[in-house]
Amino acid sequence: MEGVTAGNTSLSKVDGVAGKLYYCGIPIEPLAEQATFEECCYLLWHGELPNERKLENFKKELAEHRSLPPQIWEVLAPLAGRQPLMDLVRTGVSALSAWDTDTQITLSDKEEHRRANLRMSRRMLAGMGTLVAGCFRLSRGKQPVEPRDDLSHAANFLYMVFNKEQGEYEERIFDAALTLHADHGFNASTFSGRVTSATESDVYAAVTAAVGTLAGRLHGGANTAVMRMLEEIGDVDHCEAFVGKILDDPKGRIMGFGHRVYKVEDPRATVLRRMAKELTDRTGNSRWFEMSRKIEDTVKAKKGLVPNVDFYSASVYGSLGLDPELYTPIFAVSRVSGWLAHVMEQHGDNRLIRPKANYVGRDLDRAFTPLAER
Amino acid sequence: MEGVTAGNTSLSKVDGVAGKLYYCGIPIEPLAEQATFEECCYLLWHGELPNERKLENFKKELAEHRSLPPQIWEVLAPLAGRQPLMDLVRTGVSALSAWDTDTQITLSDKEEHRRANLRMSRRMLAGMGTLVAGCFRLSRGKQPVEPRDDLSHAANFLYMVFNKEQGEYEERIFDAALTLHADHGFNASTFSGRVTSATESDVYAAVTAAVGTLAGRLHGGANTAVMRMLEEIGDVDHCEAFVGKILDDPKGRIMGFGHRVYKVEDPRATVLRRMAKELTDRTGNSRWFEMSRKIEDTVKAKKGLVPNVDFYSASVYGSLGLDPELYTPIFAVSRVSGWLAHVMEQHGDNRLIRPKANYVGRDLDRAFTPLAER
Repeated sequence: MEGVTAGNTSLSKVDGVAGKLYYCGIPIEPLAEQATFEECCYLLWHGELPNERKLENFKKELAEHRSLPPQIWEVLAPLAGRQPLMDLVRTGVSALSAWDTDTQITLSDKEEHRRANLRMSRRMLAGMGTLVAGCFRLSRGKQPVEPRDDLSHAANFLYMVFNKEQGEYEERIFDAALTLHADHGFNASTFSGRVTSATESDVYAAVTAAVGTLAGRLHGGANTAVMRMLEEIGDVDHCEAFVGKILDDPKGRIMGFGHRVYKVEDPRATVLRRMAKELTDRTGNSRWFEMSRKIEDTVKAKKGLVPNVDFYSASVYGSLGLDPELYTPIFAVSRVSGWLAHVMEQHGDNRLIRPKANYVGRDLDRAFTPLAER
Repeated sequence: MEGVTAGNTSLSKVDGVAGKLYYCGIPIEPLAEQATFEECCYLLWHGELPNERKLENFKKELAEHRSLPPQIWEVLAPLAGRQPLMDLVRTGVSALSAWDTDTQITLSDKEEHRRANLRMSRRMLAGMGTLVAGCFRLSRGKQPVEPRDDLSHAANFLYMVFNKEQGEYEERIFDAALTLHADHGFNASTFSGRVTSATESDVYAAVTAAVGTLAGRLHGGANTAVMRMLEEIGDVDHCEAFVGKILDDPKGRIMGFGHRVYKVEDPRATVLRRMAKELTDRTGNSRWFEMSRKIEDTVKAKKGLVPNVDFYSASVYGSLGLDPELYTPIFAVSRVSGWLAHVMEQHGDNRLIRPKANYVGRDLDRAFTPLAER
């Protein structure tokens, strides 16, 4: 499927040659620096940035839907600690459809279906933060923290993870990281959500599929893998030797470098590198950032590869004190906004996604040999 | 994606022009008539039909893995009756990874990974029948029935649904129906499983995604929709008027007719029509079959459309006394064999499935307007 065009979208545009990413035509740099995650979600869902009144309404609607039905924790409790966090989140998303009556609506009434999809999307976007933070705490033997409705999406998520409000600066950086991960063309998880929803399956089926797709090491799983590598290396002085040894093997691979689409630096990595630097200057804890810089220089010199979004999100999340197992689920907390936008776009003008396969197997019309003669 | 080739496969070949379907080169007709579902699964997973010794081993391994960890029913109990059966099965598949330690193995050791995928696939194939039958009973307020290891896959499934062994003839017909649904090129659910597994996500993530994709009305959901239509019509004398009225609307659509790939009759429908007829002649209960024949004639005359696999599977399952809500989950009980074969094929020579999107949205480089100025 490399280079194959699978369909149309009005949501984001990835220009891999120029190293640019746009949400509904607007470059991501001012969005990450001057807008909030909620504004970006609104942009992706409605094609325009909201004015103050519309934004207030949207934030209020999201905040109202943050609480999950308490039974969800009964469902997940026997699995917590047994399932890796991403699997637990996947099971949680799948289970949540039990409490949403909008899933019963069919595509035959287009306008009613559109409104139902928006309602389900609000619940899903708002609830994903609560689900991820709650699953994380459950898997650590702690009780989920009830969400607050007076905080932003980003601030409330950090509050639920740490059971404590974080600083305004940390909240702002985390909000920008969510914005940078919100959408990215037909990436694998988004595409899988579209394939699922194109059979007229609902938002829950599509997001469940997308969570499972994101978990893979070649996709969202990469940011956790980057931090595991940083932890394994342990110190800036060991970076060069560690990376060198891996790259001496022609098949050796450093996580967080190169990208299927970008031929130049991933523009999200550029913003995240600057944020990681600022965070470091402020907190004085420069360990992850300095190691990342060193690894970046080494990989560039040896292989000419540039970092992608996963590489610097690892050091940003690390500097915020977040557990590495949370990095990929945090990707889901953000990307779900894009998944939902794509499901709504797919359902708005639906056509089954059913490609052809190129058969390369045994000769056709082989004779059937009965069991006794085999 | 219509007509776009998304990749290679050695598993099945759909010849839509000739109306032929092959598993590993062997036409499905002798497989449905002379082989068992277990033989077909072995064929799809290993490329060859098993001899007697290999088949005995394979059947034994499957039978040994039929029992699920009892905790799965604790997880699903709060959802049963709240989630439609396909959603409950999806949640169950997602949850089951909690008890499988093979999910921890990575693709870096190819041979070990191949063996782990085979072990997980055996558990998943064997467990899917138990999961579907158990979810069905739970959602009807009954206790799941423990599987038996002395029955075939098909016979044991019917036993767990009805809590009673069915006749040999019924078991044979049901076995053939499973064989006919086992694989079908890059159909939407299989393709979604491949997209998910291509990020190096595991068997559970891929099958969870595929169950959600199959549930849609444009895919596996169609066989249930066919039976709902038969129930609504109620009598063979009302078929012509009912179908005529729908087809008078240019957008009107009768479920179970036409297919994205077949230009002539779906070869699975041909076999299933014959089976439905035999079943009817035997049981004397010809209601669903006669209605189906009448609808087929009317749709053919009015629109020139021919039935697909979903159309006659509805009357076969109906004549076997199966609840219509089970039809799509039964599709999963069969198709999971193909999904698993495709995940193993994908992982065997993996490449991320990440197509390009054609951007058709707003002008690029739109200016960012700060909130206060909107």
